[in-house]
Amino acid sequence: MAGTDRQQPLMTGGPAVILVEPQLGENIGMVARAMANFGLSELRLVRPRDGWPNSKAQAAASKADHVIDGTAVFETLEAAIADLNFVFATTARARDGFKPVRGPQAAAQALRARIGADQKCGVLFGRERWGLSNEEISLADEIVTYPVNPAFASLNIAQAVLLMSYEWLKSGLAPDGETPFSGPPMQPATKSELQGLSDQLEEALQARGYFRPPAKKPRMLEGLRAVLSRPGFSKTEIQLLRGVVRSLDRFSRQMPRGSGPPGRLNEDEAARAEPEPKR
Amino acid sequence: MAGTDRQQPLMTGGPAVILVEPQLGENIGMVARAMANFGLSELRLVRPRDGWPNSKAQAAASKADHVIDGTAVFETLEAAIADLNFVFATTARARDGFKPVRGPQAAAQALRARIGADQKCGVLFGRERWGLSNEEISLADEIVTYPVNPAFASLNIAQAVLLMSYEWLKSGLAPDGETPFSGPPMQPATKSELQGLSDQLEEALQARGYFRPPAKKPRMLEGLRAVLSRPGFSKTEIQLLRGVVRSLDRFSRQMPRGSGPPGRLNEDEAARAEPEPKR
Repeated sequence: MAGTDRQQPLMTGGPAVILVEPQLGENIGMVARAMANFGLSELRLVRPRDGWPNSKAQAAASKADHVIDGTAVFETLEAAIADLNFVFATTARARDGFKPVRGPQAAAQALRARIGADQKCGVLFGRERWGLSNEEISLADEIVTYPVNPAFASLNIAQAVLLMSYEWLKSGLAPDGETPFSGPPMQPATKSELQGLSDQLEEALQARGYFRPPAKKPRMLEGLRAVLSRPGFSKTEIQLLRGVVRSLDRFSRQMPRGSGPPGRLNEDEAARAEPEPKR
Repeated sequence: MAGTDRQQPLMTGGPAVILVEPQLGENIGMVARAMANFGLSELRLVRPRDGWPNSKAQAAASKADHVIDGTAVFETLEAAIADLNFVFATTARARDGFKPVRGPQAAAQALRARIGADQKCGVLFGRERWGLSNEEISLADEIVTYPVNPAFASLNIAQAVLLMSYEWLKSGLAPDGETPFSGPPMQPATKSELQGLSDQLEEALQARGYFRPPAKKPRMLEGLRAVLSRPGFSKTEIQLLRGVVRSLDRFSRQMPRGSGPPGRLNEDEAARAEPEPKR
């Protein structure tokens, strides 16, 4: 997976986010925060109801100050998009079919390609209550809409911006680079290390008469080896397991059964050691 | 994009969303709303700070009543995941590298495949302030983390649930959501079955003084649980392993060390072994 450093060059630029007549300062602030989370920074407002600057927006932005401080305010939507080459309009409703419609992932990929070709781009988001008018949508090039539960489709404006911003960041990652950090590259142990564990366990079980009747031992061993080989244990895991088997094998219990505190569940310990009943 | 009608069959089921010690009712409500937006419905809470039901959660859910009404509350995380076969833990921080790490899109695809194979799945989300503890994460199978702006990485809990839910819905859209993965061939045991093995082993090791010095026990237990949870053992495998541990734990060696050849045993050898006494 790509390392975190590869993402650094993606954290500037990106499309402008344009809110048309936003009402609540809290929403503007949460939009700014969502943008910052995914590396967008250019916020434009068309006729915000409560004017600008807005202290509630600043509070809700929780330190996305660079977005809030750089916010530009416009009297008309036309003015807000005048310098842009390409504009998406977001809408939850099917319109009269006069524009191409994309999902957020395809839209983000299209924006990534256009911005890479030095086009200035933006995404329009409508009012909290009723979104964008058809006239406003007609000013955009294409439509973005979100895959949602048709029975519960109302996304709020900050959520809509969040998803678009998230897809923007993802669109710049290598196909397998979705995570900023990754788990350990798990290297399975060698077969002889695995065999060592298997032999150790077989010997310890044999010494206790686990394999009975003797005629069934080959089948039982097969089952045991299948369980040990299936997970692809790493060297470290095998070392830990060998220590566990060694402890069980070589040392006697110091405490009678049930007196050792096995964490939360020691009351049930004896019962749990019984074969589990079939459900 | 796929038409809206195609989504209808996807709007039930999906992974459970499990919030660990959520503090603000507003956040729980916004989580419920985000889930409903993308067709998830099963919410579980572990020790919500302000109890349950919570009127602030109901208000913030803005009509996601079916999620709020169906919310289940648990005293422990173990209980909250006991019936699940597979669990993701979400975290923003790199941990000590003991679990596979996925992005939300890959995680959603994996969940889609597992749920399609009738596994019960869940996704853990931590507290607003500091997320999940390492011990809590050790109870999960894999980690989900989000691609974010490294300079502004703090997602709130409702945003994190929103993105995961969104990817869940997307993962069910034809055609590309269905091709890359097929159902895993093996059904992992439930978490309570896994916990049974873990408890049994812990008790048997504790009785032998394996955990020493005592101060290191929590770390040693974490490591042990990581090894036990990583393979995704099936119910059958766990039954076999519990039998192995039981034999090692309860029965003494009948033969001196080294007398039993660890390789393939002949019939004589097996016959000499004492049968395991019946209890």
